[in-house]
Amino acid sequence: MEIGMRNRFAFIGGSSGRWRVTSMQSVRGDGLVAVSHVDVLTVLSVPTGPLPAWRIDGQISNLRYATRTEVGALRSKQEPLGRAHSQVAAMIPIRKTAAWWDLAQDERRAVFEDASRHTAIGMRYLPAIARQLYHSRDLGEPFDFVTWFEFGTADTPAFDDLVGLLRATPEWEFVEREVEIRLELQP
Amino acid sequence: MEIGMRNRFAFIGGSSGRWRVTSMQSVRGDGLVAVSHVDVLTVLSVPTGPLPAWRIDGQISNLRYATRTEVGALRSKQEPLGRAHSQVAAMIPIRKTAAWWDLAQDERRAVFEDASRHTAIGMRYLPAIARQLYHSRDLGEPFDFVTWFEFGTADTPAFDDLVGLLRATPEWEFVEREVEIRLELQP
Repeated sequence: MEIGMRNRFAFIGGSSGRWRVTSMQSVRGDGLVAVSHVDVLTVLSVPTGPLPAWRIDGQISNLRYATRTEVGALRSKQEPLGRAHSQVAAMIPIRKTAAWWDLAQDERRAVFEDASRHTAIGMRYLPAIARQLYHSRDLGEPFDFVTWFEFGTADTPAFDDLVGLLRATPEWEFVEREVEIRLELQP
Repeated sequence: MEIGMRNRFAFIGGSSGRWRVTSMQSVRGDGLVAVSHVDVLTVLSVPTGPLPAWRIDGQISNLRYATRTEVGALRSKQEPLGRAHSQVAAMIPIRKTAAWWDLAQDERRAVFEDASRHTAIGMRYLPAIARQLYHSRDLGEPFDFVTWFEFGTADTPAFDDLVGLLRATPEWEFVEREVEIRLELQP
């Protein structure tokens, strides 16, 4: 049980935490209860105590669409979360439609990359915009994924471009719920 | 939370249950504690009470490798679990190696189908051998999957053929733990 649990994280919205919320926006579908802070903890280190406003769990897992060529390109350019200059972050929980999950693997890949250039678009913003995907759907959460982005304050316009490009893709026609939370690191 | 939880099942080994164990075999790696019975319940309906000998949870999820053509062929031939004549079953929990999970999607697909014909082999035994895959890896379980097969007693030799063919494929070089449990329905 333990190996997998070490890769499972809880995104906790409440009145305290390492990240201060600077904005919350319901991009599509229902939003989340407004909170002032978000914490990201491994599920094994979530403290007991009063329930937070909300909690979304996500699991770091294997990549679902990237080819070997793409994995190589990503790994050569990307940088990890937690960089000293990454003073701002964005948390984007997303749920896709039943129609998306009914697609076969080749159809999802065709929408994700051939039509939408999801990986190619993200790659343009590396290493400035660091990102980590967490899978929530198979955990029974109300979102399918949480993507967590970290970057320097000066790269905020680049991040705005990145999410704007992704939301204009055919892939986003399969997004039925999306919330965007911007954050800054507590001093 | 509830929608996902309805697709999550617990495989419970103990001294009672709907399925009686007729054999348990450690195919590769560590086995499981010997039990006389197995129950398969949705996680929401697992009774409280004494802990069973073991419990493995698995989630019904989207197909990871099948193309639209393959999905169509599968759906046209396969039959569900729970058929009246399916008096015997097999439960096969499997864990794959870290090397498997480090592969990119195109590499896993190439091993799974192009080299190993996993779907094509299974298709030959439809509709006689009904099967359901449950995903366990992202739940933090010690196995990555549980596959549950159901068939009539007369189809036992066909099932033996099926697992024999799969174990001889290149895909099985990535299997580091496999247990096979044969069962029969309680009268």
